[in-house]
This record gives sequence, structure tokens and C-alpha cells, in this order.
Amino acid sequence: MESIKSCFFQYSTPRLLAVKSQGIGLIYRLYQLGAFIFFVGYVILSGHHQVTESILSSVTTKVKGIAQTNTTEFGEQIWDVADYIIPPQEDGSFFLMTNMIVTPNQTQSKCAEYPTLKSICTSDLNCTKGFKYAQGNGVQTGRCVHYSDSVKTCEVSGWCPVEKNVEPPNPALLADAENFTIYIKNNIQFTEFNFSKRNILPNMSRSYLDNCVFHRNKDPNCPIFRIKDIFEETREDFQTMAVHGGVMAVQIQWDCDLDKGLCAPQYSFRRTDKKDPKSSETQVHNLRFAKYYKNSDGKDTRTLFKAYGIRFDVLVYGEAKQSDFLITIFNVGALLSYVKVVDFIIDKIFLCVDKEYKKKKFDEHQLQ
Amino acid sequence: MESIKSCFFQYSTPRLLAVKSQGIGLIYRLYQLGAFIFFVGYVILSGHHQVTESILSSVTTKVKGIAQTNTTEFGEQIWDVADYIIPPQEDGSFFLMTNMIVTPNQTQSKCAEYPTLKSICTSDLNCTKGFKYAQGNGVQTGRCVHYSDSVKTCEVSGWCPVEKNVEPPNPALLADAENFTIYIKNNIQFTEFNFSKRNILPNMSRSYLDNCVFHRNKDPNCPIFRIKDIFEETREDFQTMAVHGGVMAVQIQWDCDLDKGLCAPQYSFRRTDKKDPKSSETQVHNLRFAKYYKNSDGKDTRTLFKAYGIRFDVLVYGEAKQSDFLITIFNVGALLSYVKVVDFIIDKIFLCVDKEYKKKKFDEHQLQ
Amino acid sequence: MESIKSCFFQYSTPRLLAVKSQGIGLIYRLYQLGAFIFFVGYVILSGHHQVTESILSSVTTKVKGIAQTNTTEFGEQIWDVADYIIPPQEDGSFFLMTNMIVTPNQTQSKCAEYPTLKSICTSDLNCTKGFKYAQGNGVQTGRCVHYSDSVKTCEVSGWCPVEKNVEPPNPALLADAENFTIYIKNNIQFTEFNFSKRNILPNMSRSYLDNCVFHRNKDPNCPIFRIKDIFEETREDFQTMAVHGGVMAVQIQWDCDLDKGLCAPQYSFRRTDKKDPKSSETQVHNLRFAKYYKNSDGKDTRTLFKAYGIRFDVLVYGEAKQSDFLITIFNVGALLSYVKVVDFIIDKIFLCVDKEYKKKKFDEHQLQ
Repeated sequence: MESIKSCFFQYSTPRLLAVKSQGIGLIYRLYQLGAFIFFVGYVILSGHHQVTESILSSVTTKVKGIAQTNTTEFGEQIWDVADYIIPPQEDGSFFLMTNMIVTPNQTQSKCAEYPTLKSICTSDLNCTKGFKYAQGNGVQTGRCVHYSDSVKTCEVSGWCPVEKNVEPPNPALLADAENFTIYIKNNIQFTEFNFSKRNILPNMSRSYLDNCVFHRNKDPNCPIFRIKDIFEETREDFQTMAVHGGVMAVQIQWDCDLDKGLCAPQYSFRRTDKKDPKSSETQVHNLRFAKYYKNSDGKDTRTLFKAYGIRFDVLVYGEAKQSDFLITIFNVGALLSYVKVVDFIIDKIFLCVDKEYKKKKFDEHQLQ
Repeated sequence: MESIKSCFFQYSTPRLLAVKSQGIGLIYRLYQLGAFIFFVGYVILSGHHQVTESILSSVTTKVKGIAQTNTTEFGEQIWDVADYIIPPQEDGSFFLMTNMIVTPNQTQSKCAEYPTLKSICTSDLNCTKGFKYAQGNGVQTGRCVHYSDSVKTCEVSGWCPVEKNVEPPNPALLADAENFTIYIKNNIQFTEFNFSKRNILPNMSRSYLDNCVFHRNKDPNCPIFRIKDIFEETREDFQTMAVHGGVMAVQIQWDCDLDKGLCAPQYSFRRTDKKDPKSSETQVHNLRFAKYYKNSDGKDTRTLFKAYGIRFDVLVYGEAKQSDFLITIFNVGALLSYVKVVDFIIDKIFLCVDKEYKKKKFDEHQLQ
Repeated sequence: MESIKSCFFQYSTPRLLAVKSQGIGLIYRLYQLGAFIFFVGYVILSGHHQVTESILSSVTTKVKGIAQTNTTEFGEQIWDVADYIIPPQEDGSFFLMTNMIVTPNQTQSKCAEYPTLKSICTSDLNCTKGFKYAQGNGVQTGRCVHYSDSVKTCEVSGWCPVEKNVEPPNPALLADAENFTIYIKNNIQFTEFNFSKRNILPNMSRSYLDNCVFHRNKDPNCPIFRIKDIFEETREDFQTMAVHGGVMAVQIQWDCDLDKGLCAPQYSFRRTDKKDPKSSETQVHNLRFAKYYKNSDGKDTRTLFKAYGIRFDVLVYGEAKQSDFLITIFNVGALLSYVKVVDFIIDKIFLCVDKEYKKKKFDEHQLQ
């Protein structure tokens, strides 16, 4: 009872030893001031006085350029954007066809499978009606037929004639694509901070945007990129990658300090399907699509494209920072705990150098 | 040695001055209690007792509506979703074609380039065989030919006849599109908190979803949006934007307080390709795609579309908050440092008003 | 003046009571050491010594498999990837068509609307020229014509004949799709930590990747997933979902502790359009696309597909953690405030058990 009473009706304050020394007193106050300034400064310089918000981004892309091919199969041909971008529009990503294996005039019928270990046969006994497998081009009919004069394979029901399982042309058909340009429009937003910006800066005029090409040093803000330049920066060879395809990231970094009004995009490039040098993985990026026709008899016909190409991914990242009173209070408060550590050290030094100080500071007590 | 020994075998506690005063004692305890409650309350009210997790989202969209066009070129025509959404499916984004420049019956051949400063010629000497440029429609053959009776341009090899580089129709062909509706299905997940939710709420019946249309005040939860309403909210004019195209964001904000069980979507709209008023940038969103045919001779033919339209981006953002014991401990701990600041002030006041207090509190010591 | 002078030219230190007790002294030091170790340990074990960075991801997918259908309408037909993936490429998401309602040979003309409550008529008076509605197939001409021998509907101008508004086939046409496989390639990056990784691990050889199939226990790292397995894990029935379509998420979680060098993908699956059991919402995922032809007269013709299918979304999430000196300092500092709480408790115990201790610790003072 007594102790509870004293707890509530009594105010306790430490008894202090006032060390009369102008030098020490001043140094100690300077130390305290210095520690406080240091902590506040440290919090601010290390950016721990700011809150961050992650980015909300919207991207559109547009590719420009014309490529010329000359194949024995189709003769001379010109490819424009409607031919080589598949599908015509995507969200922050697009596929640029650079090479292809074309199988024209396929119809639903029966024909010899492409010769592989699994499909070569000598008689109908090697083939199973209804059998199909992932790499195959159709469902086996159970018959063994001539694929060519020398080879017999199991007949399949499917799109005939079947696609040839061959290596793509080398050099790539659309080797010209390295001179194509990509125009990237990016709008970003920080909803909490109520801030939005585009990578098309207000001072960019129509004529500038019609003619500029991104250059790391000479024109680092132009949003139009030549594919050759992208590949040179990443030290990948476009002509090699064009044969079997690949995935290339165009990265846009926005690190915005809204206190300072700094907010500008930075562009970088990176191959994202780079395999480990030790790995035996096949590095290929392809997809299959078809153009569908009715032939003269009204029968459904298609031209199958096994399209190799570069998938471009526009990856936008970064964050905005803005100073926040509360977070500063929290972080300075956390550091203030460390003031006492230095207090302790100073005290120990005094105890060593001054016997009288020790005597006066301490009252001794033997616990009973 | 002595000091190390005393350090480990001695317990030091501050000697206190017990100020016997019921009023002060009570006030001081109340202040301590108040400070603690204030700090805990501040941490909780400012949301610093909660941890946040960012959102994982999956979006599907479906557009409905029929548009009618009547052009001299194609006569009366009806457009449904299979005609005006290109490509038919995307991930949280789609392109609604509202206007177009159509170039039918293109085949790979040779023809006069569209007249521009770069292509107009008077004789073959003005044309360079093999030359091509980004805005061109093919590769020059080196000949200068008649584009029309009055104009001669360099002949190109490519898809012929070439696209006319003209302004798109005004008013836009698919002006009816402002009455189309967009049905947006959104599933969000917070994996750490093991929480997921959809924007289709459990109490929405089949008949409600068949008939409702989003309205900011009357029906703010309906996931079906009329395009006209979206444009009215953003104060953009649909008919103007439909001519040259543009990019519109449908933003879904999920700010979920899982402690309170609050988690609902909020919809807003924003034009993301809005240019700076001072800028001379051309505000256009278009893409080119083609429909491929075999003509009666079996030759590859295409109808090229330069499609202007609105790209809709569904942008989902927000975060979930849930109270976390540890983060509360950290933040209250950081604030506790500030209790001492008030202690210091109270002490100074006592020192001023009470000479005896000062005498008893301090022992003086002259450093030797 | 005096007090300001003493403030700056005087160093104050608490007067202490040195309790001479080897036991207590040692225990107190152990407690202090223990508290410090505990706080540092707690901060580290709870992961509050690390900073986190969110993920930057790029995904490509490839589906393999052949399906066979046998309909009275089209006879026996084989479907490969170019037929059932629409569009052929997307960014981390694709649509696998599993069922469809096909309307072949549509041309722009006039025909009877499909019979519904809104379209059935008895005379031209029931039909309004120019009227169109969201579920309709065209613009009404104002005439009432025979849809069949028994039913008359309002004539519409549009793609004719109109699509039949019927239930999709059950079982689904591409029931074989459950044996298809999905190959997912995922590259992730943490830009601040300058760390990137792929889900194709360096030790995966070409032959392994040609043959492996993901299995939760036996092969949890193989990036190739059989659709049947995905559905079994989520306890959804593929054949049911294939009829009306749906949305399935393939989730890849990367929780990387860069201090420990741990960073591996974990796969999970989830149906994201799962409706509330009480809801009467229709659970459907379909889209419409068309294949365009010129018929023998050169007239634009299309085959309309109302395609039901599974939308697969590859959702990548997770974060990297790396220890950070500053954040450790902040969090340990915040906890140090709590040391004093225990000091207070220890002191109270002494005050209770030892009257002499209390007498020496406190000087009494009556406030004047």
C-alpha cells in the first residue's frame, strides 16, 4: 500500500553530480548537439526520412521499318509492320518475327508424318491407329506410307503436308530488321503522391520526335530506339539471335525524388533468356501461327508459320520518394537510444581519471 | 582490474530525489501514462502498427456493342466485337478500333510510291535502286513512274497499291462505339495474408450483372462501364479522340484493411497519353494489321488496315494492411525515446521555481 | 542567465548507489548482455535486419499438344497450337480454346435475327428500323421475316447468317486439351541488388527439358506443366471448365534471401474466376474472333468463332531480402528503449526487499 501510494503521490528525479568545468560542460553540450544533428542528418542523407511508393505504368510501342527477303520459294518479298509484328498490338510487349519456316497450302487430310525416330516405319505393324505424341503433327491412322522415295513413315491425319522439322534459315530471313526502330510511349503514375509523368517530355517537339534516335551519350532521352543499338549495348549479336529468336528486355527506370523535383526515365537493355554458359539448354524463341484461306474448292486451307523472332518486353520499374514527418520522427527516435551509449563511455573515462569524481558519484550500499 | 571487477560485481542504480507532492506526483504519472497511450495511439492511428503487402492481380475484359458504318468505298457495313477488337484477347488491355484507313487488294508487286517530298521525282536519276526509308512503303526499283496524271514518284517494290498517307476520316467511322460497354472481371490476391477477392461481389446476381451499368453515384460497384461515361468523367471528348486514337486507363484501386474487413474496389479513369499543352507532339494511337487472302489466281493478297483507336489499359493497384505485433513494438519503442525530452523540460521548471530542489538535486564537484 | 551559463559550462551526471553484491551485479550485467543479444537476435530472426526489393519479371509460354475433334458439321479435324492458341503470343498470359460455336460463311447482308424475347415478331409493326441492342447481331431493318418455318423475327442488317445463341457443346470439343503441356520460361530481376535468375536452372540439360513434366513431389522444378495436373491440384474438373471456359492462374513465387544465397521458384495454381457458392453469376470465359475470306465472288466472308476456353495467367510475385546495416541499427535502437522497462522492475523489487536500499536511494524533498 505504502509503495503504491508513494508511486502515485511522489515525483522522483535523479540526484545529479554537477561537474563544474567549462571545458567539459561545453564539450558535452556540443556532443549532445552534434549527436542530434548527426542522427537527423544521417536519417535524411540515408533517405530514411522519406516514404516510397511503387510505380503504376502504361506502355505502348510502335515499330517502324521495311525488310526485303529473296527466297527461292516465294521470290522477292517486302515485309512491313503488318507482316512481321504478331499479334499487331500487345501491352508493353511485342514479337518481331525475324525468321521462319513456312508450310503453305495445308489442308485437313492424311499424309506421311515427318521422318523422326518415332515416326519411321517399315510396315503398318509399326504404326498404331489413334496414337499421337507431343512432337507429332497429327493422329496416326495405322498405315505406313512413303514420305519420300527412300523413307517410309506412319501416316497421320492432320494438317497436310506436315511441317518440316528442320533448322531455320541461316542467315535469318529478316536480317534487315536490325535497322528497324521502336517508339516507346510510357506513362507512369504515383497515385498516393498524386503525380504522373510521361517519357515524352514537354520540350520534345513534333519534328524532334520524327527524327531522333536514342543514343546513350548524345541523345539519352529520345524514346525511339534502333534495334541494332539495343543489341550493341547488350553485346549480343542481332544476326545470331535473329536465327533462333530470343527475348530482349527494354528497361525503363524511374527513380523519382519528389522533394527535389527529380523524375526522369533511364533506359537500359538486357537479354532475359540468356542461358548459363555450362547449360546445354537450347536457346530458342518461336511461335506458330497460321493464315487461313478457303481454296478454290471452298476447302479450309492454311499457311503455317513457325516464326522465330525477338520478343521485346518493356519493363518499367522504380519508385517515388517523398519526405514524411512521421517516418522521420520514428527513425530519429530509434537512433536517440544510442546517445546513452556514448554517455556511458564518457562517464567511464571520468571515473578513471578522477578518484574524487568516483567517490562523489557513488554511494556504496551492501545489500541486506 | 579494479574497475572491471566493480563493473561485474556491483549493481549501480541512480540515487533519486523523492519530491513529496501529491499534485506533482499524480500529474507526472498521468503524463507518463498519457505519453505512452499517446505513442501507442499515434502509431495505431497513423497506421504504423500494420504491415502492408502489394497486390497480385488478374484481369479479363469483354466488350459488347454493334456499330454501323456507311462509306462510299464499302457501302453499309455492320461491325461487331470480332471486327473491332484487335487482337481478340489480351491481358488487362485491349484495343478498340474506332477509325481506319483501309487499303484493299494489296499484292507483292511494283508500283508508284505515295507522293511525299522524299518520293516525288522527275526522272529515273532521282531514284536509287535498293533505297528504302522508314516512312516509305517499299524498296525503290530506281525507276520514276506516274503516280497520277500529274505526279511522278519513284517506283517501289512492295505491297501494291501503296497506302495513302492521308488524314483519317473525320468524324470517325465507328462513332457508335461510345455506346459500347466494357465488362471487367478482376481477381486480386494478397499471398502473404492468404486473402483473395473479386470485383464481382457475392451479392451480385446474374440478372444484375446482365443489366447494370457503372454510375459514379448510383451504381459505383457495377463492373460494366459504358465508354461514353468513362470519357465524360475524364472530360475528354470521345468523338475527337476516336479520330486519331488514344490511350485510356481504367484504374481499379484496392485499399484493404484486413483488420477491419474493409476491401472493395474503387474505379477511376485517366487518359495516359495526354500531352503537355505547350508541346507540339502529335497525339495519335494507331496500329497496322492486315487480313490475308488468296486471290482467284492463288496469289497472296491482303487488305491493310491502318487502325486508329482507343487502347484501354486496366491498371490495378493498392495494398492490404494487417496489424503486426512486431512492427508495433518497433515503432512504439522508437517514440519512447521522446519521453525523456519532456522529463528534461519538467525538471528545468522545478529548478527554476524551487531553490532548495536544485540544492538537493545537485552535488557539486570540481574536476581535478 | 545563471541557469543558461550552468547549462553550458557544467556537466551533470547522475549520482549512483553502488550496490555491492557479486550475485546481483553479475545477474544485472548478464541481463543487460542478454537483453542486447536478444534484441539483436530478435531483429535478425524476425528478418527486420534486411531490406526488401520487389520483383521485375518477364515470362514466355509455349503450349504443345494435338487435339482431335469429330463433329457432324466439319467431320474429323485435327487441332494444333496454331489453331487453338488465340492470339499466338501474349505477355505472360494465353488463351487456350477448348470449345466453340462456329458460324461459317457470314457475309454482310440482311437476314432474320436469332429468336429471343426481344426479336420475335408477328408483323413489321413490331420492328423498328435502325434499332440495335447489345445482345443483338445487327441493326434492324424494320421488316419482320421468317427465321424458320414456325418463327418470325425482325430482320437485321449485319453479318449473316447470325450466330445461334445456344449452349456450347457438352462435352467440350477439345477435351483432349487436358494432356497438353505448357512450357513456362521466367526471368526475374532485382535491380537494386543487381541480381537476376531464371526458372530454367543451370543444371537442367536439354534432354531433361525435352522430357520432364512438373510433379509436386517428384519433380518440383520442371518448368513444363501438364494441364491435367494443374487442374487436379486446384481440385477443379478440367472437362467441366472446358465447356464454358474459365481463368486459371499459374503462380510463381520467388522468395529470395540473398544473404543465404537462397532463391528458387515455387509453383502453385489457382482458379481466379471462382464464384461465390451462393452467387447466381454465370461462370463463363469466352471471346469472339473471326477468320476472314474472300468468297468466290470476291465478297468479304468470315467464319465467326465464339470460343470458350481457359485463360492461363502466369502471375509472378515475391521479393528479395538482403541484410542492411542501417535498418538493423534503426530496429535495434527502437528495441533498446525497452531495456529501461526491465530496469524499473528490478529496482522495484530491491525497494521492496531492502529498507536500507530505499533509504539510501532516495533523498526526500518537500516542494516549496
